[in-house]
Amino acid sequence: MQKNKKCILILSGGLDSVTLLHDIVKQHGKENIIAISFNYGSKHNAYELPMAIYQTSQLKVEHRIIDMVQVFNNFNSALLNHENSEEIPEGHYEEKSMKKTVIPFRNGILLAIAAGVAETVGATKIYYGAHGGDHIIYPDCRLKFIKAMSSATKLGTYNKVKILAPYSNINKIKILKIGKKLGVDYSKTHTCYNPSNGKSCGKCGSCIERCAAFIINKMKDPIKYILPWEKQKKYTQKILNKKN
Amino acid sequence: MQKNKKCILILSGGLDSVTLLHDIVKQHGKENIIAISFNYGSKHNAYELPMAIYQTSQLKVEHRIIDMVQVFNNFNSALLNHENSEEIPEGHYEEKSMKKTVIPFRNGILLAIAAGVAETVGATKIYYGAHGGDHIIYPDCRLKFIKAMSSATKLGTYNKVKILAPYSNINKIKILKIGKKLGVDYSKTHTCYNPSNGKSCGKCGSCIERCAAFIINKMKDPIKYILPWEKQKKYTQKILNKKN
Repeated sequence: MQKNKKCILILSGGLDSVTLLHDIVKQHGKENIIAISFNYGSKHNAYELPMAIYQTSQLKVEHRIIDMVQVFNNFNSALLNHENSEEIPEGHYEEKSMKKTVIPFRNGILLAIAAGVAETVGATKIYYGAHGGDHIIYPDCRLKFIKAMSSATKLGTYNKVKILAPYSNINKIKILKIGKKLGVDYSKTHTCYNPSNGKSCGKCGSCIERCAAFIINKMKDPIKYILPWEKQKKYTQKILNKKN
Repeated sequence: MQKNKKCILILSGGLDSVTLLHDIVKQHGKENIIAISFNYGSKHNAYELPMAIYQTSQLKVEHRIIDMVQVFNNFNSALLNHENSEEIPEGHYEEKSMKKTVIPFRNGILLAIAAGVAETVGATKIYYGAHGGDHIIYPDCRLKFIKAMSSATKLGTYNKVKILAPYSNINKIKILKIGKKLGVDYSKTHTCYNPSNGKSCGKCGSCIERCAAFIINKMKDPIKYILPWEKQKKYTQKILNKKN
């Protein structure tokens, strides 16, 4: 059946999932991909979603945006745009303070919804851009979790929908290397947890990890930070040195 | 920590989850239960949700209703209130036609959201009223699925949230027996997939299973069917005989 070639991709508009989008379009053909993005009320959704829209429209890939704001209103996280939510912490991902940015079981929820969509359209694969660097603080990015969740989606659907996370054993540095080869336009990706006035903060864990990947790959990050790139590089290096 | 005694219950307002509500209130105390109901745009949500509200307010249990209509707009199912959705089929659950009433991975999605809420409030247990009779057509009611999903929620949360489905090995007949002992008011539960004018249809798979449980327990079902109870009993018996 033609339908069964369809694959679902969870696309945030960040560096990892955008790279994976280009990667699987090359593997499976654009007509077999349905990208799903979620508006879950995060502070950076308004920056990410336009990137997801841009990338899918450039590649002519079907794109659906699912509104989850009302669901995530029940959760606490510094990442969410609630009245009383805390400030996004600065510094490296590994720092304890970054725990505040966890949205409880977010990826489990998004994968479950993706499984429902997959079953509806007859797709049997969900691609998920979780990568090796995430697992320190986010339990729902770890390989063990992904395997268990894939068992659950397989057993809970008629089509035996499974979850594939091809980047779960590599870090952002290697993902960027893959994307460079694929010709991904990284000026149209968004990573920062705390953007303002069209610029990335350059200080949150998400920015630090992204900048480090560009620095190590000897690439200039094409997005705008509050600091000019040369200064942002130095700032990132300082944070990384502090960590090691 | 006081917080860790909290349990989440997924409460539809149907016979199974209402029985489980009474059951766990007795076990854990009303102050330790948070019941969650979902409005996912089903044809019977408007009948179920008031029952969930009634039962929790009687027991003085915290109750949250999460709106999922926009999410489930992406799915196909005869159960959903969409413009083009199909008619609810009549007859016994085991019949092939009942497959139309499957909402793709619905319980996986609801459990994932419950895990997010559990993590937010510091709860470590999610109670889920899946029962032994469901598993024939709904893959996400089967014990294997529940175990896999519980592994996923455990691995994907800091609090190691697990899913408990104490009725997953028993059928509706036994659940009703438990509820009878607990003194559950079954006039304030809703089961029918195709209600109209305040009455249950008496013909859908869900009604047939419920009526059979009352008949076998030698109880009169206190809710209103289109047919009077004596005629509804005869109709149910005819369907059950056809099946055997």
